[in-house]
Amino acid sequence: MIFDAAEYRARLAKTRAGMAREGVDVLVESDPANMFYLTGYDGWSFYIPQAVILLLEDSEPLWIGRGLDLNGARRTAFMGHENIMAYPEDLFERPDDRHPMQFVAREIERRGRGRTRIGLARDCQFFTARSRDALTASLPNARFVDCDLLVNRVRLVKSPAEIALMADASRITERIMAAFFEVVRPGVRECDAAAEIHKAQTMGTAEFGGDYPASIPFLAAGPNSATTHLTWSDRRFTDNEVACLQASGVRHRYHSPMARTLHLGRPPKRLVEMNDIVLEGMEATLAAATPGRACEDVEAVWRGVIARYGLTKESRIAYSVGIGYPPDWGERTASFRPGDKTVLEPNMTFHLFLGMWMEDWGFAVSETIRITGTGAEAMASVPRGLRVKD
Amino acid sequence: MIFDAAEYRARLAKTRAGMAREGVDVLVESDPANMFYLTGYDGWSFYIPQAVILLLEDSEPLWIGRGLDLNGARRTAFMGHENIMAYPEDLFERPDDRHPMQFVAREIERRGRGRTRIGLARDCQFFTARSRDALTASLPNARFVDCDLLVNRVRLVKSPAEIALMADASRITERIMAAFFEVVRPGVRECDAAAEIHKAQTMGTAEFGGDYPASIPFLAAGPNSATTHLTWSDRRFTDNEVACLQASGVRHRYHSPMARTLHLGRPPKRLVEMNDIVLEGMEATLAAATPGRACEDVEAVWRGVIARYGLTKESRIAYSVGIGYPPDWGERTASFRPGDKTVLEPNMTFHLFLGMWMEDWGFAVSETIRITGTGAEAMASVPRGLRVKD
Repeated sequence: MIFDAAEYRARLAKTRAGMAREGVDVLVESDPANMFYLTGYDGWSFYIPQAVILLLEDSEPLWIGRGLDLNGARRTAFMGHENIMAYPEDLFERPDDRHPMQFVAREIERRGRGRTRIGLARDCQFFTARSRDALTASLPNARFVDCDLLVNRVRLVKSPAEIALMADASRITERIMAAFFEVVRPGVRECDAAAEIHKAQTMGTAEFGGDYPASIPFLAAGPNSATTHLTWSDRRFTDNEVACLQASGVRHRYHSPMARTLHLGRPPKRLVEMNDIVLEGMEATLAAATPGRACEDVEAVWRGVIARYGLTKESRIAYSVGIGYPPDWGERTASFRPGDKTVLEPNMTFHLFLGMWMEDWGFAVSETIRITGTGAEAMASVPRGLRVKD
Repeated sequence: MIFDAAEYRARLAKTRAGMAREGVDVLVESDPANMFYLTGYDGWSFYIPQAVILLLEDSEPLWIGRGLDLNGARRTAFMGHENIMAYPEDLFERPDDRHPMQFVAREIERRGRGRTRIGLARDCQFFTARSRDALTASLPNARFVDCDLLVNRVRLVKSPAEIALMADASRITERIMAAFFEVVRPGVRECDAAAEIHKAQTMGTAEFGGDYPASIPFLAAGPNSATTHLTWSDRRFTDNEVACLQASGVRHRYHSPMARTLHLGRPPKRLVEMNDIVLEGMEATLAAATPGRACEDVEAVWRGVIARYGLTKESRIAYSVGIGYPPDWGERTASFRPGDKTVLEPNMTFHLFLGMWMEDWGFAVSETIRITGTGAEAMASVPRGLRVKD
């Protein structure tokens, strides 16, 4: 087990406090990050219907998934085997009315909770509209309450054990960036550079191995440096081009993402100037990210810095980060952007991502930061400025 | 562009024929595999709301996504820039009523289709219940029709260009398996073996690079060989244990998955016997997979073979495969299992996966197969039997 019993007790207590606030007796949770957070279950089975069911009263959570994944759940989740169950295989991926959530409904009914208020996520990719329809139709006497992001909000402030895993992930991130700076040079194929980056990410350090990331390494070079989410290609790097990498070391599902930019050959003036502006903005933003401050106020500091240089950035500059499963390592709660009034607390963690994408080029630098008792600190240690390979 | 104009014309025509059969005038498609199939758009942006909108009348599809991904869409989708649009950033990831699908609804309305029948996917992970609610509430005069898997069914039979990409992917799969057999030995950490597997997968061949897979490589060894979907760990391989790998080479989003099993040291009798039974079953199944036959009848042949040895297998033995994005490379249409009456046609492709998982050990072998004019052929060439490293 990665975490001890006290860690899970605290997580469940905070989640149940949230359930009580929402007035729900049962929570059905299908987000793999939330399932991992509540139970330790860690399997690549989130492409099919599955759920953790949590009752408001003190008891172990219940895991329900496919028979194929039962052994994996028994090996990773903390609960007794009686609370780890498989739905019948003939409910799986059927074009007709059969659906795994009918089994989930039956188990809720069997526990005497068929007439209670049940919390569901309305915006969870892993609990589709069909899943919701199948569950609600099978529990005609229940009332359903939108509990989107309830567990995500509990995850905002990290425990010391979680911070320790993010520190481990940060050590791997440092190695990923070292591989990036090392392997990219004129004549090398993008796919071969990406291969070394993947290798560093998976190998980890001599003390601990790496886990898979919630997003592939985004390697955007040359003409693609103006894009944010494309994949590497077979193209070879050339002289006089820019390469941006966004990637994350991962340890037991905890991420520490980072972006850095490299230039092959003498960098153009516009890139050097952008580097100076963004680094100034990064320092000002880090200095402003103190506990007690609202997210939107921190973003306003960044906005003020780049405005002095005639620049604007429409998208948010940070989002909370921690546990991640594909396709996203963002927690979908607090963001540094106008309108977000979330107040910073110690041990919140954010990916502070200052990407500036122009029509046909880009520059990106980011840090995963931890809010401390007095300010904010970058979790990985990699020189921040534009790297030049001459 | 990966495909020529004629390829896209044929795909759109088949999709529109399906729309006509369902009686819908508009199709809203958010599955990234289907978006790629219809337009060529290939970006890791499927963690947020986005869609391709297809009208029944002949015209280019419309791509709507986030501003950050506009450059990526312009570089990968075949349509003119006027058919590639971003929704306003202030609709993105808001806890209130604002939602990107309101912009999608507006564009449907602007094209005079606000009072028509609109096809939506009810079981698509990338079109959440919240997305559906936001879209349907913004189009009060439309009627909504369940079009789950409409495009997936069009994808079942591959074109020659698609088969060529799957053949390329198969060359990469062969290299992945070579790396697996090479690197796994007593004393090596699982994460270091996984690192070499990732490297081979991403690097591809000297002629073409690899793309990222829709699922991580599943490396299940020793005590984990009884599980299907766990990740590698920091544990070191030991003498006298089994290691199963399921992984896929990928070329331009096309997959060719494969599983193989390796034993370190002299294999136990039960594993050798299982190998013989499963290989006999594989050959019988391949011989039975001829065009004109129903999927369930092919499965019955496999079932008959293992029954003679007193074995049963509850889960399906094959599923259609091709384009994939995380979290799944399965196409979610035809499967070899009881009740599936899909009739095999030339250039359908399946992942034929014969995994036998016992209480505390497992054995797995699989092939990606293509239905030919007369039978079935394995797309990659790797010796099939249990590999022994003595």
